Amino acid sequence: MQARLLAELRDEGPLSKAQLADRLLVSRTTIAVEVTRLAELGLAQEAGPAASRGGRRSTLVDLAPEIRFVGIAIGATGLSVGVTDGRLVVLATSTRACDIRQGPETVLAAALECVREVLAEVGVDRPMGVGIGVPGPVDFHRGVSVSPPIMPGWDGYPVRDAVSRELGCPVVLDNDVNVLAVGEQHAGVARGVRDFLFVKIGTGIGCGIVIDGDLYRGVDGCAGDIGHIRVDDVGPTCACGNTGCLEAFAGSAALARDATAAARSGGSSALAALLGQKGELTAADLALAVAQGDPQAVQLIRDSGRRVGEVLASLVSFFNPGLIVIGGGVTGLGPALLAEIRGVTYRRSLPLATGNLPIVLSELGDEGGVIGAARLISGSVYAPDERRSA
Amino acid sequence: MQARLLAELRDEGPLSKAQLADRLLVSRTTIAVEVTRLAELGLAQEAGPAASRGGRRSTLVDLAPEIRFVGIAIGATGLSVGVTDGRLVVLATSTRACDIRQGPETVLAAALECVREVLAEVGVDRPMGVGIGVPGPVDFHRGVSVSPPIMPGWDGYPVRDAVSRELGCPVVLDNDVNVLAVGEQHAGVARGVRDFLFVKIGTGIGCGIVIDGDLYRGVDGCAGDIGHIRVDDVGPTCACGNTGCLEAFAGSAALARDATAAARSGGSSALAALLGQKGELTAADLALAVAQGDPQAVQLIRDSGRRVGEVLASLVSFFNPGLIVIGGGVTGLGPALLAEIRGVTYRRSLPLATGNLPIVLSELGDEGGVIGAARLISGSVYAPDERRSA
Repeated sequence: MQARLLAELRDEGPLSKAQLADRLLVSRTTIAVEVTRLAELGLAQEAGPAASRGGRRSTLVDLAPEIRFVGIAIGATGLSVGVTDGRLVVLATSTRACDIRQGPETVLAAALECVREVLAEVGVDRPMGVGIGVPGPVDFHRGVSVSPPIMPGWDGYPVRDAVSRELGCPVVLDNDVNVLAVGEQHAGVARGVRDFLFVKIGTGIGCGIVIDGDLYRGVDGCAGDIGHIRVDDVGPTCACGNTGCLEAFAGSAALARDATAAARSGGSSALAALLGQKGELTAADLALAVAQGDPQAVQLIRDSGRRVGEVLASLVSFFNPGLIVIGGGVTGLGPALLAEIRGVTYRRSLPLATGNLPIVLSELGDEGGVIGAARLISGSVYAPDERRSA
Repeated sequence: MQARLLAELRDEGPLSKAQLADRLLVSRTTIAVEVTRLAELGLAQEAGPAASRGGRRSTLVDLAPEIRFVGIAIGATGLSVGVTDGRLVVLATSTRACDIRQGPETVLAAALECVREVLAEVGVDRPMGVGIGVPGPVDFHRGVSVSPPIMPGWDGYPVRDAVSRELGCPVVLDNDVNVLAVGEQHAGVARGVRDFLFVKIGTGIGCGIVIDGDLYRGVDGCAGDIGHIRVDDVGPTCACGNTGCLEAFAGSAALARDATAAARSGGSSALAALLGQKGELTAADLALAVAQGDPQAVQLIRDSGRRVGEVLASLVSFFNPGLIVIGGGVTGLGPALLAEIRGVTYRRSLPLATGNLPIVLSELGDEGGVIGAARLISGSVYAPDERRSA
């Protein structure tokens, strides 16, 4: 009851007691009692008369204006921190370059500096809670990173408890893909969608799964780890040690590798020129080469999109989602990637499952991770343990 | 509340009011009021004093003994009908050979004859509800079959409403794979498991998805249609018209086709002998050839298992289920198939997702479909529409 009421106010804004009663299928009296209780907890408050719906005028209810959450989005090479109000509107942000391989002490110290910065900016000592996303597998219930391939030193590190001790508030830890998925659900193209997949294509490839409005984590918490689905019997060696993984064909490190090979082999003069100028190539350089009309660069992007599309087609047949959002670094490569992903996914899936299936790019940048992390902790702060009702 | 209470009694048997209060997190008074209401509806009743737990002795509650459900499992070549009590114990069954291609009027008439037979056997005029499973896609909400590839004449046929009119009770219609999955959950190896996949390998290949105890149907109701996942760029033409589908490699029709080819090409003397005796081969003949130690037959089964395992490995990485149950006709092929499916799935999935993942054969025969269909309708009879609470 408390959780649903606060989530309505978070997602929809101020609502009258009458509207809340309708949405929660309870009486106005029950709502009035609950609002009084939540006001005592400092979570909600009355906010003046509501617009008339005819009949007795109802009272508006809103979240307490002093609620503050912090979202921390840690990436492979940098981190973003933001402070939000109870509706997850970002009030201040701070970003910093930071290599994840420096280990948890260094990276978390940098994150905490950013947190103190944004809290000072909004004049708050202590937030109500902090959400953190990290670029690797997480044991959600224990709040620790587990065997993260690109995060040496983080395995088993108690990220949640360390940050919670430092800031004196509840903390949740999740992987970056889940965090981005719920950010998209709150403020992006998936707003209001109950069942969707968020596919992140960056250094790694992963998938956030939202079912009936909630993240689905799987039995061991590792659902969505699609980067290591085998898409070919042979192929380049993946960071995980196997061959044929999707990530080793279509992740941004794979694209940088293939772009470099194309530059060196003479297959692409545009990429060769870029390599000459810069000394090394990244996936983003492919976009520059594509802009110059380089056919080899276009082909590399299409190959990557095809591999991703083949996996998504399988997932669509299995899962029948209502929306697929593509996010992560390689979405900067432009329309060729999305076109290829869409073409292969639609062609290879059952018509019934793709008839109403939009496949779209995420429109949220770094802020998506911050908002998603804040949303995760808001869910946990707004929903205390179920208690025995009378 | 009503739904949860009746489901507890269905799945656990008689419980004391004190136990029900504990399980549903409500007071004994609330339980007492609810039981009185359910007794008036003819759904539950008091059943004498419970064993003492110390302190005041509680009263046992049980489902009403006169509840009767009917489950109808329609297959490609035959149908099974059973009548159950409120706990889904099968009281009487009837089976009949019947070709699905004869169309809905003929098949449903045969099914209704079986229904009347089993109802007469238990002395009941009208069941509380009927569940039906059919071997093809279903629009669950409308209760009709949709473009079923192996079911000519069934497209758009109002199966649910036709049977409901005939029997004068509520009816639910679902595809056979979902029905088998919930049968397995109620009475098979998935009993008590909240998140699992049921993979049926028969003429078609499909997957039932159970999340947190409930069937997941997807946005358009076609989740689990894994038979048409493309497993190879080239391959035999599938019944759906595409090439490279899992079903066209590993379904029982594909196995019969490959067995026949092996017999004709001289690759297998055992299969050639069987073909000579019988005039045509089915997937089951492969088991006979395997029993004679025929290497080509073993190879065909292993190839099929490998294709299934490759798809399951992708689904395990994506979905991280707690259990995979393999059912359907080809499970009669023996341990070679399961061994190959297991080997490929475990080898190709992430260790974190397979550490505690049993992959087992279904132990339920035809009765699984009957129990599953009865369970589907029991869920709908026990759970009336949510009403506005005070």
